[in-house]
Amino acid sequence: MSTAPHTWPRLFVQDDLGQKKQVILSIDQTHYLLHVMRIREGEPLRLFNGRHGEWRAVMPAAPTRKKDPAQLLMEDPLRLQKKEPDLWLCCAPIKRAPFEFMIQKATELGVSVVQPILTARTQVRDFNRQRLQTIATEAAEQSERLSVPEIREPLALDGLIKNWPARRLPLIGAEFGKAVPIAQGLSSALAGARPTAAIITGPEGGFMPEEMDRLSALPESLRLRLGPRILRADTAALAALSCWQALCGDWKNEAEARPSPLTL
Amino acid sequence: MSTAPHTWPRLFVQDDLGQKKQVILSIDQTHYLLHVMRIREGEPLRLFNGRHGEWRAVMPAAPTRKKDPAQLLMEDPLRLQKKEPDLWLCCAPIKRAPFEFMIQKATELGVSVVQPILTARTQVRDFNRQRLQTIATEAAEQSERLSVPEIREPLALDGLIKNWPARRLPLIGAEFGKAVPIAQGLSSALAGARPTAAIITGPEGGFMPEEMDRLSALPESLRLRLGPRILRADTAALAALSCWQALCGDWKNEAEARPSPLTL
Repeated sequence: MSTAPHTWPRLFVQDDLGQKKQVILSIDQTHYLLHVMRIREGEPLRLFNGRHGEWRAVMPAAPTRKKDPAQLLMEDPLRLQKKEPDLWLCCAPIKRAPFEFMIQKATELGVSVVQPILTARTQVRDFNRQRLQTIATEAAEQSERLSVPEIREPLALDGLIKNWPARRLPLIGAEFGKAVPIAQGLSSALAGARPTAAIITGPEGGFMPEEMDRLSALPESLRLRLGPRILRADTAALAALSCWQALCGDWKNEAEARPSPLTL
Repeated sequence: MSTAPHTWPRLFVQDDLGQKKQVILSIDQTHYLLHVMRIREGEPLRLFNGRHGEWRAVMPAAPTRKKDPAQLLMEDPLRLQKKEPDLWLCCAPIKRAPFEFMIQKATELGVSVVQPILTARTQVRDFNRQRLQTIATEAAEQSERLSVPEIREPLALDGLIKNWPARRLPLIGAEFGKAVPIAQGLSSALAGARPTAAIITGPEGGFMPEEMDRLSALPESLRLRLGPRILRADTAALAALSCWQALCGDWKNEAEARPSPLTL
């Protein structure tokens, strides 16, 4: 009980959070809690749901039968829910291992929505969305985020363009054609009036020239170049997200001094 | 012969390159050339060695016996060797799969040297350096780099600090303690006089406070914060490299219009 809150296990749940509320975990989460985190009765843990901040909770009693779900009791609030950057990643799906890696990293980098897009050169058109959502949830738990990004069902590029949200700035990773250096482009984006943005990256092999033309026709869209080397699809997405956070997102806020995770 | 040079296979070799010079490939490279790239007699390919730019070459004749190495003949220069960013990544080794991934990505992101460092909390103290060098070589071939980063033998953190190269700016990924937002820190680094830099990142669990103190005692060192979320070791390294390239490296150069890789 004397350990610091940031060392306590953290779980994302769907239920409402609040003083004295109870949560019944899923069987998977119960297994994780009891056999991976090895939580015992009365030990503190943390819950978040993307809406009500982060709460301290305990498991008052371990489940009596082996297959029973664990029940948790919420005690006190630890952190208030706060506004997080509203940044989409619209990316063509890639092979399983690098796609899972990309979702994990994009979650740590603070993306709010991942919208897979199907383009002419997209080789991978099928993936396990639920598994990617689980990976995003685990990455959110471990990265101390107060939210879990939404991994959406794939959408044809045309559909995305046709229904583009008016206030979202399209930032296109452009490995060919005309483009501005990413830092210069993001600085100009910052000066604009759009409150939200989307990084748009293509599949291995890139967008077709006509796809790039259609994307570029979105109002105020910016074509950003990530240097002279050819980047893999996942590298380009993660690099663009990092640069956006550094120049336009919550990485530019004055950094608070933070305790070492293992020494307090 | 009518295809564009940027679609030709690319190989890194150790030999000197120049007009009419011959190169004898290793058995591994011969296999790659004949059975993965499926190159046939007279088809163009590209060679680079990190010193003499990029050259067009052909295989005048396929090896007559199955285990013979392929011989290549250099024809014309395609690109001159040019100065590339001089950026080190000093990072604690991590588990095999994410470490390999990190080396691949760091190569695409234009790192010049990867210096593994052993810190107090480094769990992984042993790795196959030669395999990582091969991964870096393949990533360099595919990313159109004119050089291959050097993957060094691991060094204790103390040794690194003791022999720190005087003109190299230490940029420390600081997940705890005092730090400046990375974009702000890199802007001030850019204004300084140090021509070269090193990104320094810790293991899972981070640096010990006393390790951070010793790193921070390096002259002009900067402690950089990568936002409010906890990043994995590999994510932090790749994000910091991306931000450095965007703000201080060759990503800030005016982008040239570039042809689509698959349409010319």
